[in-house]
Amino acid sequence: MDRERFEKQLNFILEIDKEKQILRQTHIRGYSRQEDDAEHAWHMAVMAFLLQEYSNEKIDIGRTMLMLLIHDLVEIDAGDTYAYDAEANKTKDEREHKAAERIYGLLPEDQGKMLMDLWLEFEAYETPEARFAHVMDNFQPLLLNHENDGKDWTRHNVRISQPLKRNEKTTTGSEEIWSYMEEILEQSIRDGKIIDDREEKQE
Amino acid sequence: MDRERFEKQLNFILEIDKEKQILRQTHIRGYSRQEDDAEHAWHMAVMAFLLQEYSNEKIDIGRTMLMLLIHDLVEIDAGDTYAYDAEANKTKDEREHKAAERIYGLLPEDQGKMLMDLWLEFEAYETPEARFAHVMDNFQPLLLNHENDGKDWTRHNVRISQPLKRNEKTTTGSEEIWSYMEEILEQSIRDGKIIDDREEKQE
Repeated sequence: MDRERFEKQLNFILEIDKEKQILRQTHIRGYSRQEDDAEHAWHMAVMAFLLQEYSNEKIDIGRTMLMLLIHDLVEIDAGDTYAYDAEANKTKDEREHKAAERIYGLLPEDQGKMLMDLWLEFEAYETPEARFAHVMDNFQPLLLNHENDGKDWTRHNVRISQPLKRNEKTTTGSEEIWSYMEEILEQSIRDGKIIDDREEKQE
Repeated sequence: MDRERFEKQLNFILEIDKEKQILRQTHIRGYSRQEDDAEHAWHMAVMAFLLQEYSNEKIDIGRTMLMLLIHDLVEIDAGDTYAYDAEANKTKDEREHKAAERIYGLLPEDQGKMLMDLWLEFEAYETPEARFAHVMDNFQPLLLNHENDGKDWTRHNVRISQPLKRNEKTTTGSEEIWSYMEEILEQSIRDGKIIDDREEKQE
């Protein structure tokens, strides 16, 4: 065993424990508390395995799961940026790239580069794995939010144009899952959980 | 899309959200609170990927990660059984097998069987993947506990015979990681974090 290499790996492993303390806007089922990034990542990785048959294109599932497990690590430094916070999203890229360099830089070079590349692949949204990972990243909170009676949507006065914009490429990852997500969004408008701002836009 | 199949998958995905509420005896880094099963599973899956080079035998890493991500789901019904609670460990097997049947039974039959088999493989401790997964399951809390100044050991008056018994097969998964774990345990005895009951046993 190369002890220096092993210690770098352990430093990284201890550093990423902080992901358990990064709270998301989404609440866990039952709405007792917000979920954290580690829980979110775990949930999505299992979901990706079970729902891979709905990916438009064949994916390497191990690679997709790993991508989902590590893609939020940048939030250890950059924090969770709420999907519908326009102001915070302006600086998100820069904050996250700086974070990725520091955090993946803790690892031995080969492993740091490998995880950095996987994170960049997720961000670039261009491979089948990245596209399907993004489907999971959008579907998981939608599913929980719907199960929680849409409370996170009403709390933030979410307008339908917001999830539609956020999900504009979801159909490139999974037409079938996006079709189901659309059903939930339509239902949530009818139930008054999401504000319908589509008419305003057309005027 | 077979809608009945998809709904079974979603029921399972929502059911396993409960794993986020199952608290372990181990605390997160900094000792502010106990960690939950979902966080533990996430942490181990990333660790397995990074530390696979120390497995005694070559492993299928995707399979090992999935095993780690799902192996604690039985605790949704059976609860977390503390490693050193002798009484609770007597009924652990029966409680967990019943739980596995109910929880994996929520899935479409093919997927339910696949995950059930993977869980049974973990429990049987006979494949290289199961052996390495067990290394992670023992190393992750030890690493956190050591980082937290051994507080979970002192809190439970842990005697060295307990982790030694729990880890009696760890070396079959990774001699290198077990060697490092032994170092931590020896250090923790010297620091008074773990009680040395080895002399008593030999008398």
